[in-house]
Amino acid sequence: MKKHNFSAGPCILPKSVMQKASEAVLDFDNGLSLLEISHRSKPFVDVMEKARSLVLELLGLEGKGYKALFLQGGASSQFLMVALNLLEKRAGYLNTGTWSAKAIKEAKIYDDIYEVGTSEAAGFNYIPKGYDIPEDYDYFHCTSNNTIFGTQMKSFPDCPIPMVCDMSSDIFSRTLDFSKFDLIYAGAQKNMGPAGTTLVVVKEDILGKVSRKIPSMMDYKVHISKGSMFNTPPVFPVYVSMLNLEWLKNLGGIKAIAEENDKKARLIYSEIDLNPLFKGYAVKEDRSQMNATFTLENENLKDTFEAMLKEAGINGLNGHRSVGGYRASMYNALSLDSVKALVEVMSELESKA
Amino acid sequence: MKKHNFSAGPCILPKSVMQKASEAVLDFDNGLSLLEISHRSKPFVDVMEKARSLVLELLGLEGKGYKALFLQGGASSQFLMVALNLLEKRAGYLNTGTWSAKAIKEAKIYDDIYEVGTSEAAGFNYIPKGYDIPEDYDYFHCTSNNTIFGTQMKSFPDCPIPMVCDMSSDIFSRTLDFSKFDLIYAGAQKNMGPAGTTLVVVKEDILGKVSRKIPSMMDYKVHISKGSMFNTPPVFPVYVSMLNLEWLKNLGGIKAIAEENDKKARLIYSEIDLNPLFKGYAVKEDRSQMNATFTLENENLKDTFEAMLKEAGINGLNGHRSVGGYRASMYNALSLDSVKALVEVMSELESKA
Repeated sequence: MKKHNFSAGPCILPKSVMQKASEAVLDFDNGLSLLEISHRSKPFVDVMEKARSLVLELLGLEGKGYKALFLQGGASSQFLMVALNLLEKRAGYLNTGTWSAKAIKEAKIYDDIYEVGTSEAAGFNYIPKGYDIPEDYDYFHCTSNNTIFGTQMKSFPDCPIPMVCDMSSDIFSRTLDFSKFDLIYAGAQKNMGPAGTTLVVVKEDILGKVSRKIPSMMDYKVHISKGSMFNTPPVFPVYVSMLNLEWLKNLGGIKAIAEENDKKARLIYSEIDLNPLFKGYAVKEDRSQMNATFTLENENLKDTFEAMLKEAGINGLNGHRSVGGYRASMYNALSLDSVKALVEVMSELESKA
Repeated sequence: MKKHNFSAGPCILPKSVMQKASEAVLDFDNGLSLLEISHRSKPFVDVMEKARSLVLELLGLEGKGYKALFLQGGASSQFLMVALNLLEKRAGYLNTGTWSAKAIKEAKIYDDIYEVGTSEAAGFNYIPKGYDIPEDYDYFHCTSNNTIFGTQMKSFPDCPIPMVCDMSSDIFSRTLDFSKFDLIYAGAQKNMGPAGTTLVVVKEDILGKVSRKIPSMMDYKVHISKGSMFNTPPVFPVYVSMLNLEWLKNLGGIKAIAEENDKKARLIYSEIDLNPLFKGYAVKEDRSQMNATFTLENENLKDTFEAMLKEAGINGLNGHRSVGGYRASMYNALSLDSVKALVEVMSELESKA
């Protein structure tokens, strides 16, 4: 039976990517496994360079002063690295949920942080708007998509200072003017690849302006100077990310996948809105195209619904443990057919109820 | 043709491990790939717990107050984390080469560091002995094996303060009383698994004694409290490490592999000593069992030797770019047969010359 994997991340990747990744574990270069070759060997250096250049190409950032790095430690390490590299006196953060709050917490170790806006009082079910970004701050930080609450920033402010964005859960999923951002970071395990590597795309001219001494592994300039190979990189996760970026390019790039993602999101949200058994969590205008969060209005139907999901091969639909309910994560590699299968179950539940 | 992979790391892993890893990329749990399942799903939580407990079991550290963590960022991140978590006023470091020097450099950002001993003047071709470790220091740090220079600590001091050891390149390769150490760390990519995860084994009672505020991702206590799942772990590297630790356990544990490693080291060093064409780099008593470093006395034979190596399927024998010459890395999964193949080529070169 076909599985429909709505996992929130790590998440589904294209079948062809899995196939090539599996083969490379057995034979990548002339009989040697990808796992046993030197990261300084030409075949792997080529992989790293290709992955880095595909990132800039897909984001439309080639020749604009940006560098792409494949680091480790997840977005959680970036919460810290951003502050270490950019925070001198004060920064402004938009608080749109759990991940923003964690970014704020880590940056506060180093300096004062100002929340330019927050939707915490409303359980983060919307994106604050109309906030001011002080011009004399070091940078502004925001989270483009909130996996737990299912909200997404549809537009970004005209920012008078460097704009830093955690795009872990929606990078490569929609067309944006990425040159508005000075630093973008993203854990790989949604739309880029498997868990174990973290993408950083940074405009070089914002670096080198803080007075603190930055530890080597935390210093973007060190990683840039070493071509993202300051120390042994996470070879397999970088390789699979490269395969996945190639897949996206061959598909037609972000523009092509964005159209698919639009269709998937329209389908699920129209079911949520039309079916009286379900209720969306996020306010409509801020709904995430990646993570649709919803609840079942009648708790008595829970067991029936979940049995039906199981029977239909639908996997990974549980809401995050901090909010409950359901969450359909619809990352790039999830097909429209999988969303159709889910919507069918939701609609069948209505006819049964 | 069989390849003999003497790569310094990432390095050879057992064939059976590669096979299972390759299969898991296609189907790990009920039709789902290892790369697309949630790290919070039971099948992966089981992998993480098994990997952590195999580490303690193999090192003989069960029930002795230690915790095993699978982190990210390589030993290079540990240079920093060790200092952040343990360094209050002063620490003593033994400088035995490039990796020790890097550890010292990163720790110096936080506080004063004292080199208890160094072999730098001799090009790090031996391990300093007879040094004193001041009792009022926070900890003592050493590097058990030096991949670049081919030296290895055969014994460790009776240490009056917490002893921290970078065992990246020889953990799980020889029997030691691991309970002498309070913190051991190791990048996975030699004897533990593929690149992308870093093992930390720490005695809990040495933690929580510094006054600084430690960022969450840098705090061992945070990772311990979350069962090594504070954030998304590097799923694939952890899984392959678990497979490799299982392989080692089934083989008879460290004791069994240590006997094999003895045989391999004796074979290569006896050839280096008997064959007048070659010269070992490290002093005999400190020679590494993992990395045999040597030079060809007559540079004119270089091309012939390298052509013969290629023909014999011998791979990864180049010395580190900072010292040149040759380096035969003989990690756990490299068979005695591969060392025999190398020794045959060396001996054949002698008969030709």
